Amino acid sequence: MTSHEPDEPDDGTGPTTTSAERLKAFTDAVVAIAMTVLILPLMESVTDAGAEGGGVASWFGEHAEQLMSFALSFVLIATFWLANHRVFARVERTSPMLLWLTIGWMFTIVWLPVPTAMLGSMETDDAQKLVYIGSLVLTSGMSLAIRWYLLRHPALHSVAELRLRRGILADVITTALFLVALALSVFVPAIGYWALLLLVLVSPVHTLLWRALGRGGRRSST
Amino acid sequence: MTSHEPDEPDDGTGPTTTSAERLKAFTDAVVAIAMTVLILPLMESVTDAGAEGGGVASWFGEHAEQLMSFALSFVLIATFWLANHRVFARVERTSPMLLWLTIGWMFTIVWLPVPTAMLGSMETDDAQKLVYIGSLVLTSGMSLAIRWYLLRHPALHSVAELRLRRGILADVITTALFLVALALSVFVPAIGYWALLLLVLVSPVHTLLWRALGRGGRRSST
Amino acid sequence: MTSHEPDEPDDGTGPTTTSAERLKAFTDAVVAIAMTVLILPLMESVTDAGAEGGGVASWFGEHAEQLMSFALSFVLIATFWLANHRVFARVERTSPMLLWLTIGWMFTIVWLPVPTAMLGSMETDDAQKLVYIGSLVLTSGMSLAIRWYLLRHPALHSVAELRLRRGILADVITTALFLVALALSVFVPAIGYWALLLLVLVSPVHTLLWRALGRGGRRSST
Amino acid sequence: MTSHEPDEPDDGTGPTTTSAERLKAFTDAVVAIAMTVLILPLMESVTDAGAEGGGVASWFGEHAEQLMSFALSFVLIATFWLANHRVFARVERTSPMLLWLTIGWMFTIVWLPVPTAMLGSMETDDAQKLVYIGSLVLTSGMSLAIRWYLLRHPALHSVAELRLRRGILADVITTALFLVALALSVFVPAIGYWALLLLVLVSPVHTLLWRALGRGGRRSST
Repeated sequence: MTSHEPDEPDDGTGPTTTSAERLKAFTDAVVAIAMTVLILPLMESVTDAGAEGGGVASWFGEHAEQLMSFALSFVLIATFWLANHRVFARVERTSPMLLWLTIGWMFTIVWLPVPTAMLGSMETDDAQKLVYIGSLVLTSGMSLAIRWYLLRHPALHSVAELRLRRGILADVITTALFLVALALSVFVPAIGYWALLLLVLVSPVHTLLWRALGRGGRRSST
Repeated sequence: MTSHEPDEPDDGTGPTTTSAERLKAFTDAVVAIAMTVLILPLMESVTDAGAEGGGVASWFGEHAEQLMSFALSFVLIATFWLANHRVFARVERTSPMLLWLTIGWMFTIVWLPVPTAMLGSMETDDAQKLVYIGSLVLTSGMSLAIRWYLLRHPALHSVAELRLRRGILADVITTALFLVALALSVFVPAIGYWALLLLVLVSPVHTLLWRALGRGGRRSST
Repeated sequence: MTSHEPDEPDDGTGPTTTSAERLKAFTDAVVAIAMTVLILPLMESVTDAGAEGGGVASWFGEHAEQLMSFALSFVLIATFWLANHRVFARVERTSPMLLWLTIGWMFTIVWLPVPTAMLGSMETDDAQKLVYIGSLVLTSGMSLAIRWYLLRHPALHSVAELRLRRGILADVITTALFLVALALSVFVPAIGYWALLLLVLVSPVHTLLWRALGRGGRRSST
Repeated sequence: MTSHEPDEPDDGTGPTTTSAERLKAFTDAVVAIAMTVLILPLMESVTDAGAEGGGVASWFGEHAEQLMSFALSFVLIATFWLANHRVFARVERTSPMLLWLTIGWMFTIVWLPVPTAMLGSMETDDAQKLVYIGSLVLTSGMSLAIRWYLLRHPALHSVAELRLRRGILADVITTALFLVALALSVFVPAIGYWALLLLVLVSPVHTLLWRALGRGGRRSST
């Protein structure tokens, strides 16, 4: 029996690497749906308010928090998708491990509409902050795991090692800033979810740390 | 350390342009879901009416407005998607700014089912008109921003400059006509959302203005 | 000003043909969502039954009709998608008209979950049969319009003319059989939706009529 | 009349094989939506709990079972998708039969959110176990049917026969272990759905049986 699969050193013993195209398309579909599903509680609250004779203006007054939580999660999922888009742009092959890491990452994205609904419809307490910001920590943690895995498996992609290292540093900083934001929102309740604005520090902290670690210098000397 | 990314002048300092294919696929998925989500309130009202013993004929009588709002928003989202489809047909690369502009455009599309639900289930008042037609203004405004950005960044695409300028003029006219329709529907309540029929004027106004601006002439002389 | 778009006789005067790839991907996404949305009323009825302490066995007893309507519409949408898949396999370009015809076809598909919900949760009456089977007539009518348009615009595709003619005949027969099924279900209430089983006649009737029209003969003589 | 379709031995008598790309994209979209739809009952229960003044912590306490069922079904659908991804990676053409087998497989996936909702919101009884695990048996049965069909139709793909045979053995073992898990969960109620952990045995049993059947030996001698 001869193998019909010349492209691949397939010894018939199990799954090996496969093209990454379908994984990317699948990821896109899952993220697109998770982003759109965020709108459903708002649609439902409109229908409910309409059935009780409520008007548009009063609806906006009563659902300000839900609107904010929708916009916030929409932007966050878009940001996570952009990061995924960027790292996978030069990934050509997948392995079972990379597939599962990506599925784990998707799980945290598909889950996010639940904490978002909590933010929009429940009293803000520490448990809520832990669940919402904790979910974001998980997503950026999975992103970190994916980049780390790619760094260890250069055969799967053509991303420059330096770029991956910079990305890993960005993921570490993002995860750390989410944790700081969580602590801040819990210990300084007046700040609440505005603590997430700390995330604008990702880029400047990244620039500082990259230089401090001597990467920028080493790089420029090549 | 040498770069493995020959196609791209990647100095490792951050995101640069990437292929536009995945952005288009992602946009398609988001728009497709937003279009389909429009049907959910109708499905739910059928289930509710069925639980109360209502029949098909009476359901149509009671939900005429909801049906109209579904059809209207479906056609509007389809039109917006076609315009996006057309402009992106010759966009080959994306930049972070173009990605964010497209995400902003998507945001207005994903949001539209909420004003649609308002139109279908709440009393028609000025606030409702402002929210529904205001959302359409935002979408055409984002479309304008995307075309404007592309005009400034010819490296990302192979759309002829003249075509982009014509598209920008069309977006300006569309946005203006949405604003006129909004004013009309507010100040002449008897017209209501039929004011949106003004949009059929986009094409003739476009032809007139293009000639008036001397573009047609200049073009034909080359 | 010179055109940067060599592939296309673009005189800058408006939309022309574009690649069909994105339309196909968009169609797939819309149909996939419409097919999956069919499951939502069943999910919701499970949650509701669960909240009232109902069990699995009794749920199946009470929702037999809803289950049948889900399965029926799932199979019908799958059939419509397969037909679309087949006709578009050799369509390489789109025109504005083809885009709008496809959007019209999509509209009938996205709408189908509403009649499905009626079938699953309301009393079966003539209005319901008219709405459900009428929707199917619209879908096959739109399919017919698409094939007819393609027949008139051979530049958009590489489908053999004979194949298109056969497809048009199949669409005509399908539409006619849906209408016969509608009449049957209305005038012989005992048959109800089983009248849709008439559709298994599409293939034999097609073979008969094709021969009767002399197509098979003419074809074999070339 | 001459055929314009040189790639395909098209005698105009009906559907023949077509490229598999669109089927894969369609499958991806359907599976992605089914996976995401799993989150909807959780979102809704959050909104309901919020309306009644419930908090985050108590919600987690009350919905532990629903959370587990979401995570379980998410992982199971991901696993099924990975298997589909693997087998279709080298499928280049489809036939009507392969399309229908894949649609049947999709049907079992789109259906799974209903048993998942039962698991999360109804009393655990034998009927529930039969429906939930029975659905999984159907999915792996359809997967088996797809691989079997591909084995019989080598013209559609470039998967090595040995690999297909190994995959078929894996599907048989998976189906059998689901059935054993079902029996175990029914006859030893204390175990319940933990019986599904039996599935970790797929890989070791596969290795053992493959050797026992002499495949490994025959293979190494070639």
